Amino acid sequence: MTIKLDDVAKLAGVSKTTVSRVLNNRGYLSEETKKKVNKAMKELNYQPNAVARQLFRKKTNLVGLIFPTVDNPFFGELVAELEPRLFKAGFKVFIGNSMNDPEKEKAYLRELISNQVDGLIVGAHNYNIDEYMNTNLPIVAIDRIINKDIPVISSDNYQGGKLATELLIKRGAKFIVITDGPLSLQTPAHKRRQAYKDVMKAHGLEPRTFLINFSWSIEKKKRSIEKMFQKFPTMDGVFATNDIDAAMVWQTAEELGIEVPADLKIIGYDSAHSTRLLLPKLTTIEQPISAMAEAAVHTLLQRISGENIICEQVLPVRVWHGRSV
Amino acid sequence: MTIKLDDVAKLAGVSKTTVSRVLNNRGYLSEETKKKVNKAMKELNYQPNAVARQLFRKKTNLVGLIFPTVDNPFFGELVAELEPRLFKAGFKVFIGNSMNDPEKEKAYLRELISNQVDGLIVGAHNYNIDEYMNTNLPIVAIDRIINKDIPVISSDNYQGGKLATELLIKRGAKFIVITDGPLSLQTPAHKRRQAYKDVMKAHGLEPRTFLINFSWSIEKKKRSIEKMFQKFPTMDGVFATNDIDAAMVWQTAEELGIEVPADLKIIGYDSAHSTRLLLPKLTTIEQPISAMAEAAVHTLLQRISGENIICEQVLPVRVWHGRSV
Repeated sequence: MTIKLDDVAKLAGVSKTTVSRVLNNRGYLSEETKKKVNKAMKELNYQPNAVARQLFRKKTNLVGLIFPTVDNPFFGELVAELEPRLFKAGFKVFIGNSMNDPEKEKAYLRELISNQVDGLIVGAHNYNIDEYMNTNLPIVAIDRIINKDIPVISSDNYQGGKLATELLIKRGAKFIVITDGPLSLQTPAHKRRQAYKDVMKAHGLEPRTFLINFSWSIEKKKRSIEKMFQKFPTMDGVFATNDIDAAMVWQTAEELGIEVPADLKIIGYDSAHSTRLLLPKLTTIEQPISAMAEAAVHTLLQRISGENIICEQVLPVRVWHGRSV
Repeated sequence: MTIKLDDVAKLAGVSKTTVSRVLNNRGYLSEETKKKVNKAMKELNYQPNAVARQLFRKKTNLVGLIFPTVDNPFFGELVAELEPRLFKAGFKVFIGNSMNDPEKEKAYLRELISNQVDGLIVGAHNYNIDEYMNTNLPIVAIDRIINKDIPVISSDNYQGGKLATELLIKRGAKFIVITDGPLSLQTPAHKRRQAYKDVMKAHGLEPRTFLINFSWSIEKKKRSIEKMFQKFPTMDGVFATNDIDAAMVWQTAEELGIEVPADLKIIGYDSAHSTRLLLPKLTTIEQPISAMAEAAVHTLLQRISGENIICEQVLPVRVWHGRSV
């Protein structure tokens, strides 16, 4: 029987994360905890796996990126901003499109780890993937919570949600619906929804959430948006938490003869480069994609070289003023 | 002095391509040519480079993709369609964004070759890059001519240009301008322009080309498009050879108070997934991106396994009917 991290954790009476931190000497740990874990490892004759041993191997100059899909203006621009920076720093870049499928994400992770990448930048949105816990690879997450040891780069999602909701209210909208993905995806982007709720309540307005899942097909999204118009016939504002959904809401409004912004005000989120080129009329919250890429690469390089890093970096957002609000 | 492929070619009195084909045993070669080349190699004591020797090494299960940038709806979707297919076939995928810079493309090629990829799929647009000639790697090109030994997957660019121009004329446009990149980029996409010219001439109309370079900044493109409106004040039709340019032409028309499609008819090219979501009103020529990815991966896998392949595959296009023509 192979002894696993789990067995060590159970015998030591600590969590798997703690064992992983002891193995990687990362994060704050009391001397007592370290002793307990080391004792348990000794007792069980625990051999850290191949990945752990990788620490002592030479650099491969490979970095893996895992994102839902580059067929999306936000992730496309993000990858296009990350890759040349990594290349300039001497790294070749692997890419995986996880499509928010946990099995696919796990498969990528195993492949990338076995390929001995020097580090990972991940923006896929699955939680509780053991592979992340059991590796001592340097990892940086973008807009995603993996575990508390992995640094997260994000833009100011709460501020973005606040700006969007306040703008809709300022322009006269009262029945405002937010579209968002399922809360089961662990992402700081849910702070957009929290800010929306807080602002609505502060103005005595009722918050309403309508679920649109990022990984649904276009047809399913379209039908779902039509249902939203049926469910909320007096809706006069939509805060869509990504621009593709905002564009689809706008198109559905046009099909129904609802005028934007006169009868319905719409604000999106992301404002990626190609979205601004194709649909500059969409009012939206602009994420600083280039600065996020810069911060992610900088943090990853620090982690790879063994430096201490700041655990969360939140970059400022601003409103892109189109003509939809 | 190191003996190069060039020296062998000169002594044998054949082209570098021919020497490369002899080395790789690829394409039709007469016995006489083979003898000449082998004799010259022997005389010069020519040692095929590391890349050539790679043939005899074991597979790495790595494939490199080189495209201008994934921050573009067409290339973003193409990469998103290629990568999962390659992953499913057991390959991990490297990605490089060349931004149409020949130096960057060369640097990527050298890196990928030294990393011993099993094959390459390229859609970057530079010509005469020696690195492509001197490698015996399996390569598949998408919408790009590298040399006659490398298979090209493209959609029917001539048919697309014909459909676009005929539609503009059918709807009443007479002063039609085509926007296109420089002819120095060797791509079958120039057939769109050729079809435009042929159709215009067949209708007794004067073809007019306006240059917009893919790699220009947004600001430069914008200023350039404004100049196009100044230069051609009676223009009533634009055939933009990509959707981003078409969207920018439309926005400029709106700013100038020109009504689309009443006063100006606009047709784009590509019809990528995210473009159709963001700007479904744009009439455009739809490239079969998913089928192109399928054909490229299929051909690359055939090449990697040493099979003979068809040298050019042209896939059908169709019109996406929006409301801009």
